[in-house]
Amino acid sequence: MKLFELVGRDKTRGFSPFVWRTKLALAHKGLKPELVPLRFTEIQDVVAFAGSKKVPVLVDGEATIKDSWDIACYLEDNYSDKPSLFGGDEARTAPKLLSLQVAKHLLMPLFKTLFADIHDILDEEDQNYFRKTREPRIGCSLEEARKTHKSSLKIFQNNLWPYNQYLKDAQYLSGVRPAYNDYMLYSTFLWARCTSSIKLFNEDVPIASWIGRMDKLFDGLGGCAKKIE
Amino acid sequence: MKLFELVGRDKTRGFSPFVWRTKLALAHKGLKPELVPLRFTEIQDVVAFAGSKKVPVLVDGEATIKDSWDIACYLEDNYSDKPSLFGGDEARTAPKLLSLQVAKHLLMPLFKTLFADIHDILDEEDQNYFRKTREPRIGCSLEEARKTHKSSLKIFQNNLWPYNQYLKDAQYLSGVRPAYNDYMLYSTFLWARCTSSIKLFNEDVPIASWIGRMDKLFDGLGGCAKKIE
Repeated sequence: MKLFELVGRDKTRGFSPFVWRTKLALAHKGLKPELVPLRFTEIQDVVAFAGSKKVPVLVDGEATIKDSWDIACYLEDNYSDKPSLFGGDEARTAPKLLSLQVAKHLLMPLFKTLFADIHDILDEEDQNYFRKTREPRIGCSLEEARKTHKSSLKIFQNNLWPYNQYLKDAQYLSGVRPAYNDYMLYSTFLWARCTSSIKLFNEDVPIASWIGRMDKLFDGLGGCAKKIE
Repeated sequence: MKLFELVGRDKTRGFSPFVWRTKLALAHKGLKPELVPLRFTEIQDVVAFAGSKKVPVLVDGEATIKDSWDIACYLEDNYSDKPSLFGGDEARTAPKLLSLQVAKHLLMPLFKTLFADIHDILDEEDQNYFRKTREPRIGCSLEEARKTHKSSLKIFQNNLWPYNQYLKDAQYLSGVRPAYNDYMLYSTFLWARCTSSIKLFNEDVPIASWIGRMDKLFDGLGGCAKKIE
């Protein structure tokens, strides 16, 4: 089993939130893939075999699966003897909808918050590629993003409200045990942890205790993540 | 079975999004309560017996239940032979989290959008009460809200993105059949339909077709809703 992932200039540690979801989903199923680290400018050529331009890409024997959501569904279907990623939700409606809520209300403002910091953990070739491709997507220059990242952070923090309310009374988003809903939210914070020193929340909010619990899972798989220097 | 609900100056038709959720949940379970219509200024005195200051309040034989979420859970537990409101989600984690997402990203901006229109469908006594209690909550005067409602509407429309994306490929939020997730979202639109002439979305978006499907449920329970004059 091979997992293709995105790394920074240290060429070692992955930081993509979507790859983090997949790593956590694999760990949830008790699977340990060989990791294939790729820089931004290497990805397209290497994963073209999978019909993809992005990571994660998972190769499992004869099967090649792209896209973190499709990988989660593949793992759930093909490793159904292991703990479920989606709980009782056979139709997978709730995690699918949550992935869209997370994309809209958390990943988008956090991408603007982290934009300059992500740039800074890349090597020079990747920096040029990243700036050229992401500035149009984000709608402002790297320099502007560096200046205005605090207002994006406020939007992100404000949008944590539903999760903080929910986690007042619950151990995990998925109930008494963590599952894919939790990995989608947690991977958002791991993305920031690997790329930036920014403080995303106060220690007294419910989400902080929940991250503490998530950090202990799978022998500290996410808990050991550190900023790439 | 009695359901206490909020009405406008016609003293007949309910418009509260939370009461709408309850009405749809009751219909889902095949139950038809007697409706007790209350104006804003009547609610506190009348539902005090239930330890509540708000509607919905449901009386079912010996049981008195307040709060739309608690009523949904009560119906699911006590009418378990009828179709499930929460599908396979025994822990009810997903609908609980969705209720918070809807509150934050849809109900809040929509309340600002509808503020002046809701005021206008109330009788004079209720108008005074509504203005006095809601202006501090919303953070601006009725007159300001009337002027700026278009910018609140834009936020609401922008926050429909996850639902439109999701409903591209799905019949209902809950999967192949509508359930409580759908009622939470749908009741948001019924609130607007009962109180305002404002156009919330274009007819070519997935949510428009979904509303068309929702309008046909339960002999047009929501589909027959009209603006209170």
